[in-house]
Amino acid sequence: MRTQPLKVALLGCGAVGTEVARRLLLHGSDLAARIGTPLELIGIAVRRPGRPRAPEIDRALFTTDAKSLAATADIVVEVIGGIEPARTLILAAMENGASVVTANKALLAEDGSTLYEAADKHGVDLYYEASVAGAIPLLRPLRESLAGDKVHRIVGIVNGTTNYILSRMDETGAGFEEALTEATALGYAEADPTADVEGFDAAAKAAILASLAFHSRVTAADVHREGITEVSAADVVSAREMGCVVKLLAIAELSDGGGSVGVRVHPAMIPRSHPLAAVREAFNAVFVEAEAAGQLMFYGRGAGGAPTASAVLGDVVTVARNRLANGRGASESAYAQLTIRPMGATPTRYHINLDVLDRAGVLAQVATVFAAHQVSIQTVRQDGFGDEDASLVVVTHVATDAALAATVDQLRHLEVVRDVASVMRVED
Amino acid sequence: MRTQPLKVALLGCGAVGTEVARRLLLHGSDLAARIGTPLELIGIAVRRPGRPRAPEIDRALFTTDAKSLAATADIVVEVIGGIEPARTLILAAMENGASVVTANKALLAEDGSTLYEAADKHGVDLYYEASVAGAIPLLRPLRESLAGDKVHRIVGIVNGTTNYILSRMDETGAGFEEALTEATALGYAEADPTADVEGFDAAAKAAILASLAFHSRVTAADVHREGITEVSAADVVSAREMGCVVKLLAIAELSDGGGSVGVRVHPAMIPRSHPLAAVREAFNAVFVEAEAAGQLMFYGRGAGGAPTASAVLGDVVTVARNRLANGRGASESAYAQLTIRPMGATPTRYHINLDVLDRAGVLAQVATVFAAHQVSIQTVRQDGFGDEDASLVVVTHVATDAALAATVDQLRHLEVVRDVASVMRVED
Repeated sequence: MRTQPLKVALLGCGAVGTEVARRLLLHGSDLAARIGTPLELIGIAVRRPGRPRAPEIDRALFTTDAKSLAATADIVVEVIGGIEPARTLILAAMENGASVVTANKALLAEDGSTLYEAADKHGVDLYYEASVAGAIPLLRPLRESLAGDKVHRIVGIVNGTTNYILSRMDETGAGFEEALTEATALGYAEADPTADVEGFDAAAKAAILASLAFHSRVTAADVHREGITEVSAADVVSAREMGCVVKLLAIAELSDGGGSVGVRVHPAMIPRSHPLAAVREAFNAVFVEAEAAGQLMFYGRGAGGAPTASAVLGDVVTVARNRLANGRGASESAYAQLTIRPMGATPTRYHINLDVLDRAGVLAQVATVFAAHQVSIQTVRQDGFGDEDASLVVVTHVATDAALAATVDQLRHLEVVRDVASVMRVED
Repeated sequence: MRTQPLKVALLGCGAVGTEVARRLLLHGSDLAARIGTPLELIGIAVRRPGRPRAPEIDRALFTTDAKSLAATADIVVEVIGGIEPARTLILAAMENGASVVTANKALLAEDGSTLYEAADKHGVDLYYEASVAGAIPLLRPLRESLAGDKVHRIVGIVNGTTNYILSRMDETGAGFEEALTEATALGYAEADPTADVEGFDAAAKAAILASLAFHSRVTAADVHREGITEVSAADVVSAREMGCVVKLLAIAELSDGGGSVGVRVHPAMIPRSHPLAAVREAFNAVFVEAEAAGQLMFYGRGAGGAPTASAVLGDVVTVARNRLANGRGASESAYAQLTIRPMGATPTRYHINLDVLDRAGVLAQVATVFAAHQVSIQTVRQDGFGDEDASLVVVTHVATDAALAATVDQLRHLEVVRDVASVMRVED
């Protein structure tokens, strides 16, 4: 073993950063043995150095000068999150010849290509396993293990907060607001839950997964995104009645014979027999379908300080080994300039719950609207409410999302339809 | 992109080799784009070049001279299997500066350290993702993604043949021989099924997993191995009666505060609610428990030409990228010189089915034997057969495997015990 340590600068010290620092200090000798040289944590950049911190971390490590800290490091670990100052700090670190490990899904999904290009230009590593699905090893498998195969489709639950909320709504019958309040109280949701419940977090992860799986550049802006704030207790009950459960899915799939890719995040009903239906609480799971490998599944904890730190530290060990061996590891490839399939062109199925007038001829009028948009109906269930209204639950066959959306839009304007009580996609 | 191709020599052309060759030829331009240079398949070493082969493969590629073929290659792919001539060919290839990709679990588990040392000495890559669990990316996650974490335990179903047989026994009530015959007819079992049904294949994989997960050298000889040939239809029924299913498990776990490792392959009853219980047919799944990451699961096709070729080609792309970038990737570490915990010291639980004389005092005699070995009983069920015999089903609490085995041995000699009808371990 060489004795010259590799200098590690940690930018950010929230839940993940604290765990990274603790474990770097706690498991230093194991990590050194695995790498072949010690790691030296040279400092931790924070905004408020006076804030109370984990007692194991020497207060002398804290600094507010992230830029100077990063300038002297061999490896820069960025766990600040967000676009700026993270991007500027990462680019400056690479220019100084440092390898970078980051958990920053937002930055990678918005402007990954700037980071990849800088890493190439300066001959340094850029690893970001922690940016998607926490501790679950997912990016290395896509980037390397499946690099000789042809991935067709990825379907996953990649946001623990929304999965916790939807699990509770399914288990207790709670509405969205009630389940969100519980999730916040238990620490599964942040004070401002927008990024999670509106699907921004899942969309960023979907963009990263699609980029790696399909060797193309997919950004968060390319992802069709719908959150779970509109999912009602009634939707969850409807799903249950048809043997389904509601999940927020991230889906990325090749189309047009491999010339385009569709990437979307939206709630969907999936059958209770589907393996993803069993993914409860804050767990994540991702299915990958590839030509030769067939169907693969990865399951584990998608968030939290310790699981995310596990992924960060795996990357730190890898980039450290790479620095000792030869400078940098093999990078991902992005040669395929796939076009983005618009959501309207996506083949989907809808579950539609209508409040209609309870009188003869209503079903015929409704069915005519579906037919006008070439949407075929798989099942209809009609229940009278005992007064003047009835409920009509329609599940369609596959059609384009545009045709389905246009159908729903026209249904809203039918005189016999009092209300479109719920609309949700169905995935098998 | 550079235009100088990297030369690939393929050693072996069975089910896996044929798929590797086909896909190298079929997806050549995609692979070239991912790597940054084309791969050229310069030849395929086989024993019988005259044998009928996949028509897409140019017959001029076949040769019987594996050694000369490997001598001119940049990347040697070994899918012959077995110890020799595979080992000699791999070592010669490394000496010539070639990187090696192999699916050879038997060789890695018996003499991996010779291969690792040769790779280090000659500065070349040695990748072997296909050696364990086919297409499931498992080794890269252990070697890299979890390299900053502390793995405590691995539990998996890593042999598709035995899982197919046990699934059929559970579904149809068939005995072992009948289910094996069916598996053979469907191509899930080889003509000589010994390596699968006696657990040799799973033991080799367990040794490879344990080596990577615990940064130590574990060989096949270190693995306690029991196959499934003794599993009877009655065992499967007993398992069902207690809400369990019988699976051949590969288990590797740290013990003695991390100073030793126990690695074992044996059939066990697991609860039907256990995620591994749902792994049917020829699928594989592996649970990994790590300190920071928590519990992770990997699931997919563990065998077959195409899935195994997916893993081989992922390695080929990785070593090719490494050659272009810098020569070689980061290798695994094996600094921890863990001792091997003997099977007798392993904490396990037993399910024991006894045929006993149906008379007063039998249970007392049996219970005394358990007590003499400090084995506590969790549940007992006693059923009369209506004649002179009765059945006694005992499930123990955790004890050392040695104490449990000694208990069973003494039970066999009790005059009131006509037969120890079945003994099987229980895992939660």
